[in-house]
Amino acid sequence: MRGNADVRTTGYGTEPPLQRFLASCHQEFKSDNSGELADYIPELKRANPAHFGISLVTIDGHVYEVGDSAAPFTIQSVSKAFVFALALDLVGEARVASAIGVEPSGEAFNSIRLTNDNKPFNPMVNAGAIACSGLIHEVDGRAAFERIRDKLGQFAGRELDVDDAVHASETATGNRNRAIAWLLRNYLVLQDGVDAVLDIYFRQCAILVTARDLAVMAATLANRGVNPVTGVQVVTPHVVARTLSVMTSSGMYDYAGEWIYRVGMPAKSGVGGGIVAALPSQLGLGTFSPLLDGHFNSVRGLKVCEALSARFDLHMLNRSGDVRTCIIADYDIFGITSRRSRQPHEQQILDDRHSDTRVIELVGALNFASIDYVTRRLSSEPPGAPLLILDFHRVPDITAAGAQLLAEKIATLGNSGVTTIISGVETTSPVWATIRAQIEEPKRLRHFPLLDDAVEWAEDQLIYRYGGFTETKETAHLSEQALLADLAPEETAALAELSTPRRYDAGQRIVVAGEPANSLFFLQSGMVSVKLPSGVRLASLGPGMEFGEMAIIESHRSADVWADTPVKCLELPIDSFADYRQLHPQISMKIMRNLSALLARRLILANAKVDLLSAY
Amino acid sequence: MRGNADVRTTGYGTEPPLQRFLASCHQEFKSDNSGELADYIPELKRANPAHFGISLVTIDGHVYEVGDSAAPFTIQSVSKAFVFALALDLVGEARVASAIGVEPSGEAFNSIRLTNDNKPFNPMVNAGAIACSGLIHEVDGRAAFERIRDKLGQFAGRELDVDDAVHASETATGNRNRAIAWLLRNYLVLQDGVDAVLDIYFRQCAILVTARDLAVMAATLANRGVNPVTGVQVVTPHVVARTLSVMTSSGMYDYAGEWIYRVGMPAKSGVGGGIVAALPSQLGLGTFSPLLDGHFNSVRGLKVCEALSARFDLHMLNRSGDVRTCIIADYDIFGITSRRSRQPHEQQILDDRHSDTRVIELVGALNFASIDYVTRRLSSEPPGAPLLILDFHRVPDITAAGAQLLAEKIATLGNSGVTTIISGVETTSPVWATIRAQIEEPKRLRHFPLLDDAVEWAEDQLIYRYGGFTETKETAHLSEQALLADLAPEETAALAELSTPRRYDAGQRIVVAGEPANSLFFLQSGMVSVKLPSGVRLASLGPGMEFGEMAIIESHRSADVWADTPVKCLELPIDSFADYRQLHPQISMKIMRNLSALLARRLILANAKVDLLSAY
Repeated sequence: MRGNADVRTTGYGTEPPLQRFLASCHQEFKSDNSGELADYIPELKRANPAHFGISLVTIDGHVYEVGDSAAPFTIQSVSKAFVFALALDLVGEARVASAIGVEPSGEAFNSIRLTNDNKPFNPMVNAGAIACSGLIHEVDGRAAFERIRDKLGQFAGRELDVDDAVHASETATGNRNRAIAWLLRNYLVLQDGVDAVLDIYFRQCAILVTARDLAVMAATLANRGVNPVTGVQVVTPHVVARTLSVMTSSGMYDYAGEWIYRVGMPAKSGVGGGIVAALPSQLGLGTFSPLLDGHFNSVRGLKVCEALSARFDLHMLNRSGDVRTCIIADYDIFGITSRRSRQPHEQQILDDRHSDTRVIELVGALNFASIDYVTRRLSSEPPGAPLLILDFHRVPDITAAGAQLLAEKIATLGNSGVTTIISGVETTSPVWATIRAQIEEPKRLRHFPLLDDAVEWAEDQLIYRYGGFTETKETAHLSEQALLADLAPEETAALAELSTPRRYDAGQRIVVAGEPANSLFFLQSGMVSVKLPSGVRLASLGPGMEFGEMAIIESHRSADVWADTPVKCLELPIDSFADYRQLHPQISMKIMRNLSALLARRLILANAKVDLLSAY
Repeated sequence: MRGNADVRTTGYGTEPPLQRFLASCHQEFKSDNSGELADYIPELKRANPAHFGISLVTIDGHVYEVGDSAAPFTIQSVSKAFVFALALDLVGEARVASAIGVEPSGEAFNSIRLTNDNKPFNPMVNAGAIACSGLIHEVDGRAAFERIRDKLGQFAGRELDVDDAVHASETATGNRNRAIAWLLRNYLVLQDGVDAVLDIYFRQCAILVTARDLAVMAATLANRGVNPVTGVQVVTPHVVARTLSVMTSSGMYDYAGEWIYRVGMPAKSGVGGGIVAALPSQLGLGTFSPLLDGHFNSVRGLKVCEALSARFDLHMLNRSGDVRTCIIADYDIFGITSRRSRQPHEQQILDDRHSDTRVIELVGALNFASIDYVTRRLSSEPPGAPLLILDFHRVPDITAAGAQLLAEKIATLGNSGVTTIISGVETTSPVWATIRAQIEEPKRLRHFPLLDDAVEWAEDQLIYRYGGFTETKETAHLSEQALLADLAPEETAALAELSTPRRYDAGQRIVVAGEPANSLFFLQSGMVSVKLPSGVRLASLGPGMEFGEMAIIESHRSADVWADTPVKCLELPIDSFADYRQLHPQISMKIMRNLSALLARRLILANAKVDLLSAY
């Protein structure tokens, strides 16, 4: 197994494979000059047929770009998907359903045919899109277009402009759409204001976007309605799923079955040369090339979609997952106490009752299936600890369905006497909001932003229950210090004489990491926290505990110590201590033995936690 | 924040919320007696209209069941989806495409109409299904039915039987299907043997299943072709995606657009009363109730699908994910060395060159998007360590697309001098097979089943490179023991006199966890491993290192120690050592100080690892 790897230091600054793949697509397809510029709107004939841009945006907001990804063009029919989403958001699913169907029409996008009950077949054909604009006009009147421009801008993550020349050109020549609009008016799908609605529709089609914009818009759909670049929630996940549904069944016109079979990504194209394609939870793709095939789809854009899907076998139904990986640790608090050090009688209670607190640490975006798995773990596996901590600090997202199952489980547990403590989420986080929204009356639910605080609270419950009190002692005598255990009274008295009493205010830093370790401290009253400079808390200490004791063997401080409350302590200079030990080797032996025991106990705790975290 | 939680011990043995939801569906819908028994096959009229079973199987193989979930019935058209998958598997996509289309027909399932180029519209209508059976007949002849029965049995996870009465009834009355078959023969979609193909088709429709079987079959589709109950890979993920595609576009007959919009789960129903529905990466649903609506779909089954989707907003396009959670730890080996203890000069090299080894621990099922994220992390973030360990021990699955991106990145890294080491997967695991299949020539790729072994190998590379040798010393003198550092030669000689030389064979256990700790050991030659009874290795030690030294402060052994090679050591009884220390307090001080330093160093390592693992 042993060999001689070349270990010269090199940078990893090479392009990611996906960037190179997109560049190779661009290189390969740019020489394909087949197809024609759209001519049904005269102004579109002025497009540059050589333009070709590709952009791909990931759900963590990384933007890949190749070629003319910043070249502006009019969005045209690509707008239909996003305006449909806006309509669902604005007037609700029932109102939209009363005006527009969701079945593929099997006809061209500009067909004037309606369903048997005189509705547009779906929102991806012109009739349906005009009906959508009509729904928004009903709510907003003259402000409808600004609403649309604003919402599409949220999808794209920037303010979008209108190409007035294209708008004027379409207004002058859009008689077929005018006919469709009047037919919709005839069947009362449109209310009054046909001309106003048509103007909104023509204007929305003339909104200027780039391939990069389309990719961000698609990625917003792929990311459950949250723009991954700006972080803004543009529409709800429910609206996203319905929008992607009609893109899937009707987005690529009479090609629906073939498109889902071969490419498997909800998509929408426009005669301006743009295509958006969204692969849920993975990526958004935007392409621009104005040469169109016989179905009015961008020739090069289609090729990019097909190549991406085929090369990496990307398909919305080729979806991997394993619910079991959502639990990264599941343990009781045996040997895994909070970082608050306890008095011996308190520690004894915790040692006895460790199985009363169960901690489950979750990881990843949680959905229905993964939370179902969690609820089954809770239902089937003994023992039933009355305190259950669910830690979410590695959970970026939870679906409403997942939160619903979880809330039901928490309620059931509460009825059988179990208190659930949710940790690792801030009150302001969307994860907490989603969970909280599902819980009616949180009788037996607690919430702490930090896991360690949750464990500390659970420990307090146990100590309170089994020990009767949790108060820390007011003051402690030197003889109670673990480091000085087994010393005779006159021996500790001698040490006290070598020490200087100190007082610190709450919030003061007593020991500074990196500075010379010249003394150790015996805490008499108050609380201190030992923290790494990064802010990670290593321990909380109370009266009767020592800190800075590593000075016995280390020359510099390895952590900060902060006063959490007003603090009284004795500071023992390390030099005086060394002299004393020199004079009293037997006492020194006891102290060194105590120090080793302290370290050994901490090491056992730390190793247990490492094994626990590594095991999952 | 402090309150009085009721901490009486209670069991968690309550039903999971999903079980209760399915039971409530069953309770609610069983009183709906609308719909009719199928009559187009006379034998089906004998079904019990009260029968109603629901089963839901998760992708980790948990089976939920309510009502008549074990009642057998004939699979009928539900078979079409699975036989289509078999055909794709057996004759390939191109051959299937030459015989059958993938567009919705917009007509009834038993329509005799074909596409303009005289093919069945899709495999979910009778014509397409008969064509599928024909494709299998072409390959297997008379054995075709057994092939089908066997494959459907793999999907269900048990051997399936045929209802001979239903088969006979359908054979006697299936004249419309006979007409379809002869029309297909006319257009050469079927080759010779029309009667044989029809018999296969009638027989496959008469296969007996239960709601539970259907749920397992659906869950196999949801789980990328791996039966989650048996673990058998039944078909490839590619075939699964294509099968789910046609179920999506054509599975629910002329209801495709509405079904995907409202329910959003690929599904297929049969006139026997069964419905399968698969939600990729989440669950499979199987229902049975023989009362059918006007579209020949099971009334109660549809209600269950709709209720499940609506209640939990389950929809195949409502898909959450966050690629960033796939990396659970990313670090260099500063303070995170392997558990093999090193000689001081070796440790010095590792301390100096820690940033030459970077470890990335991955978690969860990895796909295209998550591996793209990993490749970007590798491309953008300095520094470029020449040794890169990617740990997969928490990765249950990787898609071929993910493996492809990864392989490309590994090749690029290799070209710039970086050696990639993949750990945490066995050579026999599917994850390793998927990765390995994408790598042409693994020049700079290493593989270790354990992360710790990978880190050890990387350390060896660095030591070899910067120290010139990695050999462990043949033998060590007592003066080299860390525990005895700073002792004078006559002091160590005195200790040697108190000790007994011991030899152990490779594989022998030297120290047993739980036994009294009566002695400590100084290792002179050979290697030992310190392990927890669980098998977790805490440390590997070589000559010049001590073990069992916790006997100084602990009364019982906390871990096992095993000889990895033939071992020579000195055993020092703890009582003799105590007497010696009593006589020589100054020497004892040095030893205790050394012990504390050893423990402190181990504690710092363990705390660093805890903070690292907790931070992600």
